[in-house]
Amino acid sequence: MEKLEMMYEGKAKQIYRCADEDKVIVHYKDSATAFNGEKKGEIEDKGVLNNAITSAIFKLLEENGVKTHFIKKLNDRDQLCKKVEIIPLEVIVRNVAAGSMAKRLGLEEGYKLKTTVFELSYKDDSLGDPLINDHHAVGIGATTFEELDEIYKMTAKVNEVLKDFFAKQNISLIDFKIEFGKTADGEVLLADEISPDTCRFWDSITGEKLDKDRFRRDLGDVKAAYVEILNRISEEK
Amino acid sequence: MEKLEMMYEGKAKQIYRCADEDKVIVHYKDSATAFNGEKKGEIEDKGVLNNAITSAIFKLLEENGVKTHFIKKLNDRDQLCKKVEIIPLEVIVRNVAAGSMAKRLGLEEGYKLKTTVFELSYKDDSLGDPLINDHHAVGIGATTFEELDEIYKMTAKVNEVLKDFFAKQNISLIDFKIEFGKTADGEVLLADEISPDTCRFWDSITGEKLDKDRFRRDLGDVKAAYVEILNRISEEK
Repeated sequence: MEKLEMMYEGKAKQIYRCADEDKVIVHYKDSATAFNGEKKGEIEDKGVLNNAITSAIFKLLEENGVKTHFIKKLNDRDQLCKKVEIIPLEVIVRNVAAGSMAKRLGLEEGYKLKTTVFELSYKDDSLGDPLINDHHAVGIGATTFEELDEIYKMTAKVNEVLKDFFAKQNISLIDFKIEFGKTADGEVLLADEISPDTCRFWDSITGEKLDKDRFRRDLGDVKAAYVEILNRISEEK
Repeated sequence: MEKLEMMYEGKAKQIYRCADEDKVIVHYKDSATAFNGEKKGEIEDKGVLNNAITSAIFKLLEENGVKTHFIKKLNDRDQLCKKVEIIPLEVIVRNVAAGSMAKRLGLEEGYKLKTTVFELSYKDDSLGDPLINDHHAVGIGATTFEELDEIYKMTAKVNEVLKDFFAKQNISLIDFKIEFGKTADGEVLLADEISPDTCRFWDSITGEKLDKDRFRRDLGDVKAAYVEILNRISEEK
C-alpha cells in the first residue's frame, strides 16, 4: 500500500490517503513539541521508535479486545490504519499525580490518588486544549453521553491491560493520553498513538523517567529512553 | 440568638459561633470581590440585600424538598443556620454559556448549550479555585463518588426549582454557584448563599444583567440590580 496525497499534518505524524478509501497511512516524524507547541525540537529516530512501540501496543490491545484503528506496520515509519474521524477530545488517565494535574491541584509528583483519574481535554490549539468535563464535551457538541460511556469503558480496559503489561517490564504507567475516532459506520475505535510521547513511564525500581518528560524538562538521554521502552516491550512480545 | 466570637471570615460573609453549638450566625457584608480577589470593592447595602434574597430563596428550596443549612433570618444582615463543615467544592450550574466557561471554550456569551453543564471547582484560593472533574475531587479526597451523586441530585433539583421560579419573574437563570456542607451527623446540606453575587440573572425581556457582572465589568447601577432582584422575588412570595 502506497502513500498518496497528505490529508493532515500534526505535530508528530502525517496522515496520507491510500488506494483504499477506508484506510490511511500514518507516517511517524521525529519532531517533538511540548507545552502546547511552545517548545519545539527533534528527537533522532523518534518516528521509527514510536511507530514500533505504538504498533506493538495496539497489537496487544487488539489481542485483549480493544478495538483500534491499527491494521499493520508497513515499514520503519509507516502504519496502515482504518480511516476515522477523530473525536476532538484527549482522554487522559492518571494512575499517579504528575505533570499538569499535579501543578493544577497543588500535589507533589508521585502523590497516590484515591481513585484513578480520567480527564478530558478539548482538542483546540487556539484555546490551549483546555481541561473540560463530560458536560462541557456534550454541551458543545463534541460527543454524546452514550459515546462517552463507551469511550470510558474502552479507556478503563486500555489502562488495565497496559498497567499490567508494563509492570512486568518494571515500568510504572503513571499517566497517558489517548484519542478516539469514528469510522464512516460510526464505530468508535482507539486511534492516534501510544508511545513515550503520550505516556509517562517511570522505571519502577529506579524511578527514572523513560518518556517525553526527558525532552520537556531537558533531562538528557531522550532517545535512549525511547529505545529502552522499545527494548523492554520487545523482550515481552 | 446572639453572635459570640467570629469563627471564619470570607470575602462576603462572616460566620459567628452562637449559644447553640449545632448552629451558627451568618453575617452578610457589603464587600465585593471578583476574579479570585483581584478586584475589590463595596456595594452599598449588598449585605442587607443578599441576606434577604438568600433567605427567600433558601426558604423556597426547603419548601421544595431541598435540605439546606438555613434556619431563619434574624435581622437585616444576620441569618441563623445549621453548623456545617463546607465540602471544598464549588458546584456550578450553567444553563447558558457565559463568563469563564464561555472564554475557556471559545463560545459566545448566550450560546445555547446542548446539555445543562455542571462544573466543579476546587475551593483553594492559592490555586485559584481550579476547575476539576469528579475524578479529581475524589482522587484528592475532597469528596466520594457517593457524596457527589447526592450533591448532583440536589443541584439538579435546585436548578429546576430556581429556573422555574425566576422565569415567572422574567429572569433567566443563566448560571449559578452553590456550595454544600456536612453536619456533625454527616448529613449533606445546601449551604453558603444564593444571590446576585453567586448567580447570573438576565432580564428575560431586555437581556439586562441583574447580578455581580455589573460590578465585575463596571456596568454601573450595581446596587439597583440587587434591589431589582429582591423586588421581583418579593412580589412572588
